[in-house]
Amino acid sequence: MTLTTSPFDDDHLHEECGVFGIFGTPDAAAHTALGLHALQHRGQEATGIVATDGEHFNAHRGLGHVGENFGADAQNTVAKLTGFAAIGHNRYATTGETAIRNVQPLFADFEFGGFALCHNGNLTNALILRQQLVRQGCIFQSTTDTETIVHLIARSRRRTVVDRLIEAMNQVDGAYALVCLSSSALIGLRDPNGVRPLILGRLGDSYIITSESCALDIIGADFVRDVEPGELLVIDGTGLKSYFPFRPAERRFCIFEYIYFARPDSLVEGISVYAARKAIGAELAKESGVEADVVVPVPDSGVPAAVGYAAAAGIPFELGIIRNHYVGRTFIQPTDQVRHLGVKLKHNANRAQLAGKRVILVDDSIVRGTTSTKIVEMVRQAGAREVHMRIASPPTTHSCFYGVDTPEREKLLAARMSVEEMARVIGVDSLAFISIDGLYRAMGEPRRDPEAIQYCDACFTGDYPIALTDRDGGNAARQLSLLAEAS
Amino acid sequence: MTLTTSPFDDDHLHEECGVFGIFGTPDAAAHTALGLHALQHRGQEATGIVATDGEHFNAHRGLGHVGENFGADAQNTVAKLTGFAAIGHNRYATTGETAIRNVQPLFADFEFGGFALCHNGNLTNALILRQQLVRQGCIFQSTTDTETIVHLIARSRRRTVVDRLIEAMNQVDGAYALVCLSSSALIGLRDPNGVRPLILGRLGDSYIITSESCALDIIGADFVRDVEPGELLVIDGTGLKSYFPFRPAERRFCIFEYIYFARPDSLVEGISVYAARKAIGAELAKESGVEADVVVPVPDSGVPAAVGYAAAAGIPFELGIIRNHYVGRTFIQPTDQVRHLGVKLKHNANRAQLAGKRVILVDDSIVRGTTSTKIVEMVRQAGAREVHMRIASPPTTHSCFYGVDTPEREKLLAARMSVEEMARVIGVDSLAFISIDGLYRAMGEPRRDPEAIQYCDACFTGDYPIALTDRDGGNAARQLSLLAEAS
Amino acid sequence: MTLTTSPFDDDHLHEECGVFGIFGTPDAAAHTALGLHALQHRGQEATGIVATDGEHFNAHRGLGHVGENFGADAQNTVAKLTGFAAIGHNRYATTGETAIRNVQPLFADFEFGGFALCHNGNLTNALILRQQLVRQGCIFQSTTDTETIVHLIARSRRRTVVDRLIEAMNQVDGAYALVCLSSSALIGLRDPNGVRPLILGRLGDSYIITSESCALDIIGADFVRDVEPGELLVIDGTGLKSYFPFRPAERRFCIFEYIYFARPDSLVEGISVYAARKAIGAELAKESGVEADVVVPVPDSGVPAAVGYAAAAGIPFELGIIRNHYVGRTFIQPTDQVRHLGVKLKHNANRAQLAGKRVILVDDSIVRGTTSTKIVEMVRQAGAREVHMRIASPPTTHSCFYGVDTPEREKLLAARMSVEEMARVIGVDSLAFISIDGLYRAMGEPRRDPEAIQYCDACFTGDYPIALTDRDGGNAARQLSLLAEAS
Amino acid sequence: MTLTTSPFDDDHLHEECGVFGIFGTPDAAAHTALGLHALQHRGQEATGIVATDGEHFNAHRGLGHVGENFGADAQNTVAKLTGFAAIGHNRYATTGETAIRNVQPLFADFEFGGFALCHNGNLTNALILRQQLVRQGCIFQSTTDTETIVHLIARSRRRTVVDRLIEAMNQVDGAYALVCLSSSALIGLRDPNGVRPLILGRLGDSYIITSESCALDIIGADFVRDVEPGELLVIDGTGLKSYFPFRPAERRFCIFEYIYFARPDSLVEGISVYAARKAIGAELAKESGVEADVVVPVPDSGVPAAVGYAAAAGIPFELGIIRNHYVGRTFIQPTDQVRHLGVKLKHNANRAQLAGKRVILVDDSIVRGTTSTKIVEMVRQAGAREVHMRIASPPTTHSCFYGVDTPEREKLLAARMSVEEMARVIGVDSLAFISIDGLYRAMGEPRRDPEAIQYCDACFTGDYPIALTDRDGGNAARQLSLLAEAS
Repeated sequence: MTLTTSPFDDDHLHEECGVFGIFGTPDAAAHTALGLHALQHRGQEATGIVATDGEHFNAHRGLGHVGENFGADAQNTVAKLTGFAAIGHNRYATTGETAIRNVQPLFADFEFGGFALCHNGNLTNALILRQQLVRQGCIFQSTTDTETIVHLIARSRRRTVVDRLIEAMNQVDGAYALVCLSSSALIGLRDPNGVRPLILGRLGDSYIITSESCALDIIGADFVRDVEPGELLVIDGTGLKSYFPFRPAERRFCIFEYIYFARPDSLVEGISVYAARKAIGAELAKESGVEADVVVPVPDSGVPAAVGYAAAAGIPFELGIIRNHYVGRTFIQPTDQVRHLGVKLKHNANRAQLAGKRVILVDDSIVRGTTSTKIVEMVRQAGAREVHMRIASPPTTHSCFYGVDTPEREKLLAARMSVEEMARVIGVDSLAFISIDGLYRAMGEPRRDPEAIQYCDACFTGDYPIALTDRDGGNAARQLSLLAEAS
Repeated sequence: MTLTTSPFDDDHLHEECGVFGIFGTPDAAAHTALGLHALQHRGQEATGIVATDGEHFNAHRGLGHVGENFGADAQNTVAKLTGFAAIGHNRYATTGETAIRNVQPLFADFEFGGFALCHNGNLTNALILRQQLVRQGCIFQSTTDTETIVHLIARSRRRTVVDRLIEAMNQVDGAYALVCLSSSALIGLRDPNGVRPLILGRLGDSYIITSESCALDIIGADFVRDVEPGELLVIDGTGLKSYFPFRPAERRFCIFEYIYFARPDSLVEGISVYAARKAIGAELAKESGVEADVVVPVPDSGVPAAVGYAAAAGIPFELGIIRNHYVGRTFIQPTDQVRHLGVKLKHNANRAQLAGKRVILVDDSIVRGTTSTKIVEMVRQAGAREVHMRIASPPTTHSCFYGVDTPEREKLLAARMSVEEMARVIGVDSLAFISIDGLYRAMGEPRRDPEAIQYCDACFTGDYPIALTDRDGGNAARQLSLLAEAS
Repeated sequence: MTLTTSPFDDDHLHEECGVFGIFGTPDAAAHTALGLHALQHRGQEATGIVATDGEHFNAHRGLGHVGENFGADAQNTVAKLTGFAAIGHNRYATTGETAIRNVQPLFADFEFGGFALCHNGNLTNALILRQQLVRQGCIFQSTTDTETIVHLIARSRRRTVVDRLIEAMNQVDGAYALVCLSSSALIGLRDPNGVRPLILGRLGDSYIITSESCALDIIGADFVRDVEPGELLVIDGTGLKSYFPFRPAERRFCIFEYIYFARPDSLVEGISVYAARKAIGAELAKESGVEADVVVPVPDSGVPAAVGYAAAAGIPFELGIIRNHYVGRTFIQPTDQVRHLGVKLKHNANRAQLAGKRVILVDDSIVRGTTSTKIVEMVRQAGAREVHMRIASPPTTHSCFYGVDTPEREKLLAARMSVEEMARVIGVDSLAFISIDGLYRAMGEPRRDPEAIQYCDACFTGDYPIALTDRDGGNAARQLSLLAEAS
Repeated sequence: MTLTTSPFDDDHLHEECGVFGIFGTPDAAAHTALGLHALQHRGQEATGIVATDGEHFNAHRGLGHVGENFGADAQNTVAKLTGFAAIGHNRYATTGETAIRNVQPLFADFEFGGFALCHNGNLTNALILRQQLVRQGCIFQSTTDTETIVHLIARSRRRTVVDRLIEAMNQVDGAYALVCLSSSALIGLRDPNGVRPLILGRLGDSYIITSESCALDIIGADFVRDVEPGELLVIDGTGLKSYFPFRPAERRFCIFEYIYFARPDSLVEGISVYAARKAIGAELAKESGVEADVVVPVPDSGVPAAVGYAAAAGIPFELGIIRNHYVGRTFIQPTDQVRHLGVKLKHNANRAQLAGKRVILVDDSIVRGTTSTKIVEMVRQAGAREVHMRIASPPTTHSCFYGVDTPEREKLLAARMSVEEMARVIGVDSLAFISIDGLYRAMGEPRRDPEAIQYCDACFTGDYPIALTDRDGGNAARQLSLLAEAS
């Protein structure tokens, strides 16, 4: 099995998942495949679709990209996924546990019929619930938190699938955007704080529930509205129904979606991601201006902020670093002698634009700092006279427990040292991050309001809006399965 | 996916499974792979091994032959299956449901730890139990009857895994030879009637529990004894313990194991399979002698009976039909124009031994009669003057519900017509089957004793020793899963 | 076999090949694999490496990308390519003939030893030479023009491999950059007009000959100089020797390398590709300015020209179109119902930056015009008020015969209609191409000098610098091989 | 790539090839695939088919078995091989050089059109001819002797393909059965001594030329006659023509074809292979009778001789050794600890038939003696009281140079020691080979006539009927190619 995350991979946080569901079209699976393709950035390790024709369910789940599982080489696969409704999922695995049994959608034959489920987010009390369920005789097949929901539904004594789902989710803590499929309905559900994104779209008579608006664009569907925090949507042959079955909570959307996760062409929570990034870049220029000859983005994620920075600062924007787009899932494994190559497989300095120049490098975030160090070294070797790094987010000091893959705290550069120390390690002449208030200003707020925090910004501040039951109960490292697949 | 059963495949009944377990050697998985290789004839569609090191379990399960999954091309697979104990399984799927989720050993993380299980046989009340369990919130992952056992264990309130297993098996009807693996013990278990074979072997300090003695020979292990009907064996670090936790029942070993299923070099229930087949052939010659020039076996399964027949009748034994041993899992798919080839892909007449001769063809059984018809036609085209067919089993008139893949009754030739009609359809000058009493005589009995039937011979007589609960409850066609995998 | 060119692929001309050779390092093959990875943009259909240890030659050639053939999944492949010298090749097939026998490097066992050869370019009298050679008893194995060179070498009576190569190349017309490997030398050769690029680099004691400087950067090698038109370089244990064995000719480097083929971070013929593209954009803004709100590149190839245009015009540069970088070799094959998707698999409008705006779209060239039409439609659906298209090259009116895959003339939009008609077809409010003199000005020339044309610009002007012998002899469509591989 | 010959493989000589050609049916390729399947025993490493529709040629050549390349998983492959005539080849590689470039049929585009060629046999002056051709500028693509023929045809100045082929073959020494395909004719050719088999068959209006009659049986074709030594057959739209273009020579058919190579159901040179083997067994019983309880064949190749021996000796024939037919191309690779298993992967003792018995083991030949030693050890461990080995061929003392893979002389057990010494090494109570005259008697001759030797028996006698030019010229070990494929 190919490692899909390379040792030279972006030093970035990774979103765990993207979800997509559609109801009411004979092309349900084909549309889902396209939607997942547009959401590929939210998870590249595995993908799956389950479709239903009202009686049977057809599934394909596989490791790898959407195109590999549902693309030109796999035409028959989509053709076999017949049905008028379908849901799909892209997965980014947090733990290296990429076994096929963890690939979503999960599916179960309940007493009332088949049921499939996709999840973007992370449950914070899944381990405790799992222990209780195993003690009661439940057999878990996966190591995902999502399977806990499936067993809670199975054991519910409620009559309808919607009531069982509500009963199950009332026992669960965490961040989640769920898309579910029964033989007669598509169900969407967002956690009470609305940490992860979920939107509603429409294409002709079909409804779509998905993570980002770019998945609507690809199939020519219209954006209807965001699913609200705590809202449960049921779409069936009779139309769309909305429920709010949970206790209300503060709206705390993940601000990192704007910084890095979401696609720049998406609209999330009513705000253009590209515009937000440009605004952050402009704010950053105001806060931490420096004299220079060129503004150079670290491609591709630093580009919008660099465009904003350059325009605000009145300094020319130049592609001083070129990205090799052929580095996909496979890449050159250098021999020992050429292992120092590192970052060059993916990036190359555009020497003619850097030599002799004072360069402002703009990137979206710094996690471990490894890539930044190599990029700066490469820019200096290309002849840059000065290198100033500007980061379009505050220092990332805390781990995320709500569905984002973050290293343990001690591996976060900003959790271990001051900005000055970081500048020394990375090798820049100056380093600046946007301030937390600057970030909120760029988002259109006057400032971060500590009394009524507008976003989830726990990775910058440690203010976790949802209880971390499993972590605080000391279960984080518990063995989830005794079985390892040899291949 | 390649079809592993071809349209030209032997017109034979098929055993569903072979099992193997070993405890107490660092090479547990390698020995298991070899044992499964020796048991390949008991199941060719899928295979799997689970090994344990006392804490973790390592597994590989795959479609295809043992050599494809654990052979030279898969060296690393065996190497990853570390542990001092292992169990393995070869599967012949009855229903075309060859999905990977059905491949054994099944594994579950129970409250008390990991547990793996292999099964040869068939439970006759699995569907009714399954319905009850689903109603209680159990989620089934496979469509096999074996998973029912896993859930019964999970829900047992007993303290030890052995007690839980006993409680589970006391709720179950059917024929079974089970081999199970916990983190500290290998467990073998045979149904109270002893329908399916299970033996105990020893290699140095290690014990082995497996289906046939040929799996001991391949690793140089010694045969110790048969596991007794209703016996439960527990092998752990303290040695071997034997229990008889079920109500005693009549010993009714499957007589078809001698006729076709078992390998000729195996000893089952203390009798040499090859010797039994020769004795059946000799008895057949006595019962249904006919003047002829040559005795010709239908290769390969008809050979031992033909050797016995020829010796008893004093007629020369000749290889009048040659088998092409390169027809393995893949084979030539003829175009429409050459589709009439049929049996010739696998067999060819040895014309020089047949032309002008009176030929006695010896085969082990007739199921649908399709292959027999083609073989006879080929022998006649090769110039045989007379063709007399002698069958080393009584007419197969009833389906098996104890772990053997039989067609529905209406497809069994002998269920639809008399021996005379069969002779006409197949195109022979004479046709004779061994009598049921002749068969028992060949097995060393004076005759079949209707008061105390010595074997399970239900496929010939319809005398089913174990209740057929599901069948009689009308559940045979129930939908076992709403989910189909698209690839 | 996967189609590597999709129906939605860029409507672009395609370079046929990239070449790389290195001499004098134990890591020759690993460095070559990295160099080819950096040159992936010059050919994505097949790739190959031949290395030598001074006696034997080791080869791997395969369809697909460099990473697929020499990346992480193919570690052993590179390890087997032992030797102190190696050459490699990326191929873009012009005709759909992607058979493995055409994948370079070609190799032959000559009387004097082994010899391998890679070619970027196209011979214009290869078919006539081939006919003569076949008549003399030569057996061709491939359908490539490159094999003609191999047979000319084999039949030469000269003593040394260099003399034989020179004799062979003196019989050949066309554009070529060759890299060859004998058991003791690396040889580089560029055609007398210098149409295709070839450069010399150095890494420690090793010399490198390759197509572009980005292939030096990836292995940390230094750029030494361009190989001169008509120059033959021999690198062996004694160092570097330079020969000029051909009649001198006008320098006519392919100007399209600057417009589209070469990587923006490469330096070719002493000029930064990125800087050239920006200068073209700036010149275009001067020639064809228009009032607008935003300058939007068609990503990725239009970006540098758009940066230049925006800066020169003083109009904001915005990423109004987002490219999905996960569209690699495989992609979603829509069903009939969703086939209208077209361009959206690869691009999406950044609606927030386009709605209500007057947009200048900047692209590098228009070939058939199919993609442009879809992009413009997408930009208009996103709400753009006006759409003005500016093209960073003159109208492409003629086919290339020097190693670039161009459609037949009648499929070139600019060969069939005026700029006004093109604007109507594409659906823009205005359309302008840079003038041919403007293009030369951007390249630092006062203008195109018809008396001493500085570049090969045949695709814009029809001025072909090298005789088109095969084409004029009417052989273009001749059947090159009677054999088709069924898989 | 899987090794297709295993370390535990039969200790046998190996035929190098089987050939098949058919002319005059729209199903030419499908019939060829079936014919090759019937000839699988003549070569298992690679296979190929070339078909022609009168203008183009379609080919598939691949490593592995016929079923893997043209079977159910490769349906499309056969469908693409359209044409009214086809030839095909199974290859057993002698040297480990299993590269795809050596897989036949070879094909060349000659001046007069396409031409494909298959060869069973070996040329004894191919290396000397190859050196001359390379000196003249020929480029060899393979390391096979067969390619020499292709270049000789290419350089011939004769007008027709038949005349060119005759001119080419007049320069060649060796044993050969050729089947060739031009766009309008199927050509068959057998060397003047007739060492290798070649027969003519007919199916409706189509003619077939192939190695053995079993390839006719599988498609229902009739045997017409053997192709005569030195005969060249041309089959085209006008029918069948026969030529004898070579100087006449002694008929010296390979007697080992009867002993081991040919399939028992084939008729070669007018004699039933099965009947010949039985006659050899009977003769062996007469020459070297011994008191014993059972005659046991080493399966499968020893079976016919054992049947003959048992009948002649009046001792019961028993299957005392059972072969596991699931050992195909892949097999279990034991770990170090279980490597002593050796022969048991393939064979198992049928203990019940051996214990306490005096056993006559019958095998066809002894090459290195390794397998025999292990078989005897296994039979003794099963309790045999005495073990007498009888071999149905004289001692194999010389290498074959006519198309059979033999070890170097020093590895042939019988070349190194006496029969008594061999008996000690193998561990038998007695060992006897059939005498050379006994072998000829079994073939129906009064004795071997030293004045007019009736067969090629060089492997037993060292009497080589065809000059060994390359060997005597000392070229046997010459490097045939400087290129190795890394995968």
